[in-house]
Amino acid sequence: MTELNGLQAVFKQSTYQLANHGTRNIGVLKKAFEAMADEKESDIYGTGQVIESFQQKMAAFLGKEAAVFFPSGTMAQQIALRMWCDEKGLKTVAYHPLSHLEIHEEDGLKELHGIEAVHLTSWDRVVELQDVTELGDEVAAVLLELPQREIGGQLPSFETLEQISSYCRKHNIKLHLDGARLLEVTPYYEKSAAEICALFDSVYVSLYKGIGGIAGAILAGDEAFTQQSKVWKRRHGGDLISLYPYIVSADYYFNERSEKMGHYYESAKRVAEWFNSCTGISTLPKVPVSNMFHVQFAHSKEEVEPVLVELGQETGIGITGYVKERNSGSCYFEVHMGDQYEEIPEDLLKETFERLDQKMRQSFGD
Amino acid sequence: MTELNGLQAVFKQSTYQLANHGTRNIGVLKKAFEAMADEKESDIYGTGQVIESFQQKMAAFLGKEAAVFFPSGTMAQQIALRMWCDEKGLKTVAYHPLSHLEIHEEDGLKELHGIEAVHLTSWDRVVELQDVTELGDEVAAVLLELPQREIGGQLPSFETLEQISSYCRKHNIKLHLDGARLLEVTPYYEKSAAEICALFDSVYVSLYKGIGGIAGAILAGDEAFTQQSKVWKRRHGGDLISLYPYIVSADYYFNERSEKMGHYYESAKRVAEWFNSCTGISTLPKVPVSNMFHVQFAHSKEEVEPVLVELGQETGIGITGYVKERNSGSCYFEVHMGDQYEEIPEDLLKETFERLDQKMRQSFGD
Repeated sequence: MTELNGLQAVFKQSTYQLANHGTRNIGVLKKAFEAMADEKESDIYGTGQVIESFQQKMAAFLGKEAAVFFPSGTMAQQIALRMWCDEKGLKTVAYHPLSHLEIHEEDGLKELHGIEAVHLTSWDRVVELQDVTELGDEVAAVLLELPQREIGGQLPSFETLEQISSYCRKHNIKLHLDGARLLEVTPYYEKSAAEICALFDSVYVSLYKGIGGIAGAILAGDEAFTQQSKVWKRRHGGDLISLYPYIVSADYYFNERSEKMGHYYESAKRVAEWFNSCTGISTLPKVPVSNMFHVQFAHSKEEVEPVLVELGQETGIGITGYVKERNSGSCYFEVHMGDQYEEIPEDLLKETFERLDQKMRQSFGD
Repeated sequence: MTELNGLQAVFKQSTYQLANHGTRNIGVLKKAFEAMADEKESDIYGTGQVIESFQQKMAAFLGKEAAVFFPSGTMAQQIALRMWCDEKGLKTVAYHPLSHLEIHEEDGLKELHGIEAVHLTSWDRVVELQDVTELGDEVAAVLLELPQREIGGQLPSFETLEQISSYCRKHNIKLHLDGARLLEVTPYYEKSAAEICALFDSVYVSLYKGIGGIAGAILAGDEAFTQQSKVWKRRHGGDLISLYPYIVSADYYFNERSEKMGHYYESAKRVAEWFNSCTGISTLPKVPVSNMFHVQFAHSKEEVEPVLVELGQETGIGITGYVKERNSGSCYFEVHMGDQYEEIPEDLLKETFERLDQKMRQSFGD
């Protein structure tokens, strides 16, 4: 029960928030369940209408034979890679050095599955075809994350994806999609989720990021792969007697938001432009390719925080609740555009960014 | 979406059900959330008031330094055993041959953690002191399940538990409690949960069995152990961004039912006596030591099912929705007494068991 620091407190109390869908509170669950009948039966250990019909819906949406609901992407992706490794009899995979598996999972892939990972490229770039062709054949699977979150949500071109896919097929390397934010990149690629997924042997999609559910993930692929993934789901302790709290909310917010990804993408581009017009601030990427980007300051966290606190207090708009130190003397925060942006009056937004520019100028000179 | 067979259908449509707390439907969740304010914030990756205060409450209840909420017992127990194995540098544990880990987890302990299990006794007995002393020192941990579910929920004496505990401490063997149904055995032992847990180094408790939550488990132990278990929880993919749907319901139903375990135990003894008074039927154990027992028929599933279908149709009381083949020519079902029993009129119950006895007599002679 950590105490709020100044910026967090100002952000939480702000009238409007720039990004995201809203506070992650219990209302998110209650809203999704409001119209549900008490009598609707729970799923039981992966069976029952509530889980089976959602899985079928997601399989169809992703253009795969079958889909399995998992409590988390961490679990789903480790399992996908383990199965591809077992199939090839080779415990090596390749992914970006800032992959979720590398930096957020406490080495689960190695500690639980004994799988080693090769890094595909340097940390500040997206994966390109050459990164994959240079691997040789000694990997069972390549994991691509679209968009690459930790570098602001960047993307390779769709043509690159096609080339990587075709190379992997030719060389008996399985291609797995870390699609935590898959829906969010469909407007930039101008492709359906199924068209993107067709390039991959297995696909993970998160249900609480752009979609804004409570938690949970989908793992999709062919029938044999998904059937076997259920055995691993049980081994991992993810085959809960009831997953419906997550499934019902995922389904509800999927219906609410899956069509709004183009909208979030457009607002990301607009807001990034505003940030880039401010002194000492730039976004990564400069022009977003999804609903997300990083906002980077050429000054330290200690210097930037007071500016953002003041801005929030004066305008009532919270643009972020934190900034993270990056290298010495620079810091950043992440933006994921969502429903909240639409509630902010246009002129207030404009004024906020003008003030931000002024404050940056005053604080750091020009 | 399996079709209901005759017995399931009759059971689901019955006016009263003998055992359990009620249908696992969405109403269970909605009821727990009814009084919760929308504004109450979600837990975030294991932090926040909703998860931290429940964990503290459970730690105090179990008399341990700390407790961690897990999505499942499967995950919690594998992790507990892995940590004890790592500490000793020895990948062998011991448990009952019908342990949940042996028969319901698709060999997760071996496939994910590389841990081998030694069986403590024969499948039809509870673990006794001698089973443990015969092990030698070449195990890192012993897991005891109280009550031993797959043999009807039987228990060693409390004295035996004390002896096993003291033996394990002396021989540097960690003692882990599979307390899926721990609360349910406190009335028989006439001990508090904390008094029982004091004999164990680590403890798992389920939140959806006697307590009747939606899913989830608690793993409790000392501070260092529980801190490290959080690292493993992340590796397993169990450190979800939000676990509150399970925590809020677990807390709600814990408050509702933790004091009613004596009640369930008394009704189990009463109902078992009724079953034992029927021709061709016996319970295991004969006198229950918790809220659970098995009902055993000296006849095959095919022979018994029509009797139970008729009984349900005539009385409106569903005593079970299934029977399971055991050995050739015998079958059984599990009973877990809960809230539903209290709703059944006493005379209707009496009549139901009289009819059951009559039907068994008619069908199978005397």
